[in-house]
Order: sequence, then C-alpha cells, then structure tokens
Amino acid sequence: MIDLYTWPTPNGRKVSIALEELGLRYEVHPVNIGEGEQNAPAFRAISPNGKIPAIVDREAGRALMESGAILLYLAERENRFLGDDRWQTVEWLMLQMGGIGPMLGQAHHFLKFNPGKAPYAELRYRMEAERLYGVLDARLADVEYLAGSYSIADMATWPWISRYEWQQMDLTAFPNLLRWYLAIADRAPVRRGYDVPGYVNDIPRP
Amino acid sequence: MIDLYTWPTPNGRKVSIALEELGLRYEVHPVNIGEGEQNAPAFRAISPNGKIPAIVDREAGRALMESGAILLYLAERENRFLGDDRWQTVEWLMLQMGGIGPMLGQAHHFLKFNPGKAPYAELRYRMEAERLYGVLDARLADVEYLAGSYSIADMATWPWISRYEWQQMDLTAFPNLLRWYLAIADRAPVRRGYDVPGYVNDIPRP
Repeated sequence: MIDLYTWPTPNGRKVSIALEELGLRYEVHPVNIGEGEQNAPAFRAISPNGKIPAIVDREAGRALMESGAILLYLAERENRFLGDDRWQTVEWLMLQMGGIGPMLGQAHHFLKFNPGKAPYAELRYRMEAERLYGVLDARLADVEYLAGSYSIADMATWPWISRYEWQQMDLTAFPNLLRWYLAIADRAPVRRGYDVPGYVNDIPRP
Repeated sequence: MIDLYTWPTPNGRKVSIALEELGLRYEVHPVNIGEGEQNAPAFRAISPNGKIPAIVDREAGRALMESGAILLYLAERENRFLGDDRWQTVEWLMLQMGGIGPMLGQAHHFLKFNPGKAPYAELRYRMEAERLYGVLDARLADVEYLAGSYSIADMATWPWISRYEWQQMDLTAFPNLLRWYLAIADRAPVRRGYDVPGYVNDIPRP
C-alpha cells in the first residue's frame, strides 16, 4: 500500500497517473495547499521541502518527496514504463523536472494568477513556453512517445501540457505534441489519475 | 573517454566536478552560450533542448543531456557517490533539478542580470532563495551531506550555492549550509571541476 499526499496540480497528477497506470493500491491524503497544509510538521517530516506530491511506501517503510524521484522509484519497483531505453527516459524526465515544470509553473504564476504585476516576466515565460513546446514537438516528430514507448517521462510532462490554456499556448500549432497529448488523454488510467484527489474538472481538449 | 560539452555555469560545473571526483578521462568541448553556440545543429543533435551540459560516452556510444541525468548516469556507471541510500540521493537530486536550480536561476536572471525590469519578480525569487536556503540548512543540521555521505546530490546543489552573491544571500546566516559549502569547496576535485572549461575565477568564500 502506498500513501499518496497530493493536490490537483500538474506535479500531483504525475504521481496519481503513474499509480493508476501501474495498478498499485494507494490511499489518498489530500494536502490543501490553498490552506497551507503543506507546512504542517507531520507533512514536512515526509516532504522536507514542503511540496506535494510525496509518498510513503508502507511495506518498504520509505517516505519519498519530489515527483521525479517518486516516478523513478515506482517505475523501477515495478520494472515498467521505463521506455525503450532507461537513460532516454531519465533524460526526458530530467528535462521535465528542470525545465518544463519549473518554467511552465512560472508561466502559470505570472500569466494566469498575477497578470499585470510584471509584464517583463510574463513575456519571458510566455516565450519560454513557446520554446519548450517547440522542443517537445520536434522530439515527437521522431518518436511516438518521449522515450520511444510510453514511459514515466510522458507521465511527468503530460499534466503540464494539459495546462496549455493557462500558458496561453495554442496546442494546435504543435501537431506532433497535439497528437501525443490526445493519445495520452484517451488513456483510462490517465483520466482516473487526473481526478485525484477530486474537486476537479475535465481534461482540456483543444 | 567522455566528451563533455559545457560552459562555466552552475549546471555545467555539476558535471565537470563529478567527472573530476570520479577520476574519469574526459575531453572538454566549450559551448559558448554567450555566442549562441548551443543552437548549432551538431550540438542540438546531442542536446535537443539546446542547453549545456551534455556528454557523449564514446565507449557506450551514448549521448546524454540534462545535468541530473548525466550525474545519475556517471554515478551508476561507476557505482560511486550514490550516498547512504540511493533513493535519498535521487530525491535530493530531484529537488535540486526541480527547485534549487530553476528558482536560483530565475534569481540570477532578475536580480543579477536584469535588475529594475520586474521588481515583483525580483522579490519573488529573492524570497524563494531564502526559503530554499532554509530547507537546505535544516536538512544539513541532521546530516553531514544531503544524502548522508557525499553524493551527486551535493555535486548538483553546491555550484548553485556558490553563486550566493548573485542571489543576494548571506550564506553566514545559514550555519549548517555554510559548513557544508566550505567542506565541499576544500575538495581538490571540486576546485578543478569548478574551473572547467576555464575563463573563470576563484570559488567565492564568505
């Protein structure tokens, strides 16, 4: 049994989608970040950076923070979704962790939640979103999924692309990325994982 | 032999430090990002995101991008610097990749290189630097290095902390982080790796 501490954000959805794809039993513990529950000492003991998602693998007696670490842990534990080549999976997972997530997260902050506060920053992250979509579209012109076959690199990246509207991006301008996005959106485990821990809406479709 | 494509930035230094720590033979290929050399098609074939560092492991015939992927690859290849517990190493490496690097990188952009363009963003990233330094300081009150023993998680994090001045941070206000910072700064492989590919200065000391 896995305890999942999460909230319906792109980073949270990475892990709920992976748990659904792997068919693992898990118990959801919502951490309402709008109410500051991520700062509770009991949660910080599991996630010292005070961010969701985090897990506890009860049988292994292991707590783990950081969505990228959790995805790699679960995939290696089950020996599934490691792509055609494990190191290609890891490099695209790392690009998601180091670039796609943080930069699109800044786009959300400035464009969606704080418009008008820093026009220079809005332009910066809007342009970086455009650049990153182009990197993904070029990759997906050559391969069906980021690491060849469907992997944790896709599960990490997809929830961020599902917020294309917040990023003011036109997904239809990136045909390979759009094809990949819709194929993943149609997966039943993705649809189930997207709704964890509830309170949410439908997967956006262009 | 490893081909290392790099430039003297925190992300580049992670890998040159790791190569020095591991005692591996490598050939340096400077990629002058001030001149846009990261956009050359030959480099993009190795690093599709157009960022340094990247490596080619000649014997394995493998190209790899993303500093976090490269560090994990080299550590697993040599079975060294994986800390007391591999998954603790991976989670702190992921926190570096997803939080410490990207957020301190934004602090560099706004505070050091573009002051006055977005005061709201300057405050945002200055405060996030303060928060992240606090997370690291609290961790290093309990352990000597981020994953117990010295590991790739430290090699990933240390070059970013070495830019505390650009981040307008007072490192002496974080005694555990300062102790860790100076211990790593004294390592001969770190000093050698810091200077790759040259053109640089001394390691800052508070």
